[in-house]
Amino acid sequence: MNFLLDLSFDGTRYCGFQVQKNGLTVCEAVQDALQAVLGNRPDVKGCSRTDSGVHAEHYALNFHSDTRIPPEKLPLAINQRLPGDIRVNRAVVVDEEFHARYSAHAKTYHYRIWNSPIDSPFQQAYYYRVPNPLDVDAMSRAAGYFVGRQDFASLCAADCETALRSGTVRTITDCQVSQKGPVVTISVTADGYLYNMVRILAGTLLWAGQGRIPPQAVTDILKAKDRSKAGPTLPAKGLFLHRVEYDI
Amino acid sequence: MNFLLDLSFDGTRYCGFQVQKNGLTVCEAVQDALQAVLGNRPDVKGCSRTDSGVHAEHYALNFHSDTRIPPEKLPLAINQRLPGDIRVNRAVVVDEEFHARYSAHAKTYHYRIWNSPIDSPFQQAYYYRVPNPLDVDAMSRAAGYFVGRQDFASLCAADCETALRSGTVRTITDCQVSQKGPVVTISVTADGYLYNMVRILAGTLLWAGQGRIPPQAVTDILKAKDRSKAGPTLPAKGLFLHRVEYDI
Repeated sequence: MNFLLDLSFDGTRYCGFQVQKNGLTVCEAVQDALQAVLGNRPDVKGCSRTDSGVHAEHYALNFHSDTRIPPEKLPLAINQRLPGDIRVNRAVVVDEEFHARYSAHAKTYHYRIWNSPIDSPFQQAYYYRVPNPLDVDAMSRAAGYFVGRQDFASLCAADCETALRSGTVRTITDCQVSQKGPVVTISVTADGYLYNMVRILAGTLLWAGQGRIPPQAVTDILKAKDRSKAGPTLPAKGLFLHRVEYDI
Repeated sequence: MNFLLDLSFDGTRYCGFQVQKNGLTVCEAVQDALQAVLGNRPDVKGCSRTDSGVHAEHYALNFHSDTRIPPEKLPLAINQRLPGDIRVNRAVVVDEEFHARYSAHAKTYHYRIWNSPIDSPFQQAYYYRVPNPLDVDAMSRAAGYFVGRQDFASLCAADCETALRSGTVRTITDCQVSQKGPVVTISVTADGYLYNMVRILAGTLLWAGQGRIPPQAVTDILKAKDRSKAGPTLPAKGLFLHRVEYDI
C-alpha cells in the first residue's frame, strides 16, 4: 500500500528534507522512525527538497509498505519514534501511483517577518526581524506583480539546478502580504519553485516595504531575468512550507 | 531616577526570576546587562518571583540609577547585552517610591494547554499537552467558582512561605477559559498569588474539563482548605505572566 504522511517540522536543526552526505536531514529522521515502526526502511518520496533551516507546517511524503498497521494508528506510532521537532499529523492510504512530488499541483509557502525594533524571546527561530516599520501596502501592491505565468529567472539563485532541468517559467497563482501586530506574512502559491525563489521574492518585497523600489519595479526586475536586479535572499528561518495541494 | 522596565522572557533555561545560589536566574541576567550598560550593578526589584521554567509576556521590574541615558534609548542598549530569550520591551521613568512588586495591584497569568493527540513541533516549550478532548464549557463554568475574595489554601503548595507570612486569602477578579484551535487558555487575574496557585488552579480546571469533577465541586475544594483535594500542579512550561497592572 502507498501511504501519504502529513508532517510538521521545525527545520532549525536539519539540513533540509532530502538525504545528503553531510548533516542530519528530516528524511533520514523519518526513515529511522519508519524503520522502527514497520520493521524495514522504506524509500520515502518528499513533496519538495527544502533548504537547510526551512520549516514546514504541512509537508507531504509517501512510501510503500505492506504493514498491517491501520493508517489512523500510524501517526502516534511514528511520533513515538521521532524527535520532538518533527510530528506526523495524519496518515492516509493513497493510489499506488501517487507521488508526493509529482502529484502535487500547487504549494503554498509563507515567509514571516517580525517587524519591530524588539525581537520576541519566544519566536526568534521562526521569523526574520526587520526593525524599521514596513510599508505593508506597498509590499501588497508589489506582490501583485509576481502573479501569473512568468519567467522567474531573476528570482533564481545562480547555482539553480532546477532551472537547467526545467527552465525558469513558473505560475504564481497567488501572492499576498498581510500584517497582524508585529508579524508581516508573505504568502505565495505556485505550481513550482526555483532554488531560493521564495526567499528572493520575499527580499524583493522587503525592498518595496522599505521604499527602496516602487511596487511596479517588480515588472522590470522580472523582465531583466537577472538575479542581481532582485532583492536579497532572506534567511531560511522565516520560511515555512504551509500547504501542498493534491487532487485526492 | 527610578526606572521601570517591561520585559518578556522565555523561562525555559532559568530557575525563575529571583536570584538564588544554585542556577541561572532572569534577575542575574538582567543585572549583568544593566551593569554593562550603566557601569554599575543596580539593585533590581521584580514584580514577582516566578517558578523555574515559567515564562513572561510582560514582567515588570524597577531599579534606581543616575544614568543620563534617556529611557527611550534603554531597551535597545540593554537588549544588546541580554541573551536572546530575555527582551526589554519598554523603559519608563516612574515615581521614586514606585516598587514593581508592592505597587502592583493586579497580575494576570495565562496557562496554556495544547489539546491534541499530536504536539506542535514549534511550540512544545510553551504548552502543556493534553491528548484527549477537553470539555471547555465545563472548565469555563468551574473557573467562575474561583472568582471572589476567598481562602485559597487548597491551591497552595505545602511548602508555601507566603501563606505563613500573609495568609491564604486572595481576591481573584477574573478567571476565564477560552479555546482557539488546539489551544485552551486559562486566564486568571488576582491581587496576589500563593505558591503554585495558578498551576494548581489550572490542574483543577483540567479535572473539570476531563469530567473528573463537576464544575461546582470547586466550591467544596476551596472550602476544604486542603491541598490534597485540588487537582495536580501542572508543569511550569505552560505558565505565562501575561500582565501586571499599576496606577501610573
